[in-house]
Amino acid sequence: MWAVVAPRRPLLAAAMAAAAAGLALAVAARRWRRRRPVREVLFFPSPPSCTEALLAEAAGPGAPVQPCPCPLPRNDCSLSRLLRRLLSARRSLEICLFAFSCPQLGRAVRLLHRRGVRVRVVTDAQYMGLRGSQIGLLRHAGIQVRHDQGCGYMHHKFAIVDRRMLITGSLNWTTQAIQTNRENVLVVEDAEYVKPYLDEFERIWEEYNPTKYRFLSQGQ
Amino acid sequence: MWAVVAPRRPLLAAAMAAAAAGLALAVAARRWRRRRPVREVLFFPSPPSCTEALLAEAAGPGAPVQPCPCPLPRNDCSLSRLLRRLLSARRSLEICLFAFSCPQLGRAVRLLHRRGVRVRVVTDAQYMGLRGSQIGLLRHAGIQVRHDQGCGYMHHKFAIVDRRMLITGSLNWTTQAIQTNRENVLVVEDAEYVKPYLDEFERIWEEYNPTKYRFLSQGQ
Repeated sequence: MWAVVAPRRPLLAAAMAAAAAGLALAVAARRWRRRRPVREVLFFPSPPSCTEALLAEAAGPGAPVQPCPCPLPRNDCSLSRLLRRLLSARRSLEICLFAFSCPQLGRAVRLLHRRGVRVRVVTDAQYMGLRGSQIGLLRHAGIQVRHDQGCGYMHHKFAIVDRRMLITGSLNWTTQAIQTNRENVLVVEDAEYVKPYLDEFERIWEEYNPTKYRFLSQGQ
Repeated sequence: MWAVVAPRRPLLAAAMAAAAAGLALAVAARRWRRRRPVREVLFFPSPPSCTEALLAEAAGPGAPVQPCPCPLPRNDCSLSRLLRRLLSARRSLEICLFAFSCPQLGRAVRLLHRRGVRVRVVTDAQYMGLRGSQIGLLRHAGIQVRHDQGCGYMHHKFAIVDRRMLITGSLNWTTQAIQTNRENVLVVEDAEYVKPYLDEFERIWEEYNPTKYRFLSQGQ
């Protein structure tokens, strides 16, 4: 049975009440954060900017950080925001990209791979071999890459961070698209949007499994 | 002052209670619908399908509807879903598209224009002149079209229906993209996403105003 009793140590009671109130506030704040998923829209072109500090900081506490001597501004811009979203990955990163040649985004992906994030990349067979493509560097770094077999384009442009944040839009990850084109990117955490893209990634990943590739010499 | 009194006509009281309950339910259902904005994800390729019935039905009650003799299936598919979303427009349609050559989507847009929907189209200067482009037909029908001046691509692929529904993704509105490529389209009614795209459209619409075009003969 419970009964309301007068506290014998009023200071202790006040401290306990304050602690309980603090705990309740923390729980409420966490729930509020949970209810407010990330919803961001980025538009391009994004002006040329220096992202060295951002990438060096993300490389971890052991990495040498030297101020970059380049004259580019270090302003917040659509590219730096996109980089920050990507670099927030802690466990996994799925990338499904038609064209990937932006050096900064390539560095960010390799950096995540080195940090132990499980990175998987799907790309287009015809575009992955073009000059400046980052795909060779990703493979050289040990990142798993799969591609289509050339019937139509693998034209998606999306990434999924930690199976909870979707980054999608019209933007191919190329320097021209970032600095010159009118483009859009949505950053979304609503599960109703993220889940179908995850399923689509897994479908494509399985379909593009190299063991299933058909070669001209087979069956002819 | 209010007081609880025993009803003198129990049947009337019961009817009034039922009516009140019905009204409350209707209000609750309307609120629920308001809280549940459209959230749809479409993936392509979409198999070839016949969209004649859908377009004829949307042309209005006066239009002649004859069964299409073509052998294509009339199944629900990503293209028919995209068409339905577009054809739901009642007041306005903003389109911001890199490439537009799909005849069915072109017919839908012209049909909306004939129905009195205010249609505005922004497109890319280099792609609008390619063979099969729908842009000439749209202009011929009296639809306002504006384009960039060739510095970078106008690479967006989005549309906004009645200023409340955003349709965006990797999909250019071309038959190849629809029938052959791996593509995605998000249909979204959350104002947090729709508003920035509306603002972007208005910015581009103003920037591409023909009175602002610069020609080589000017100032040289």
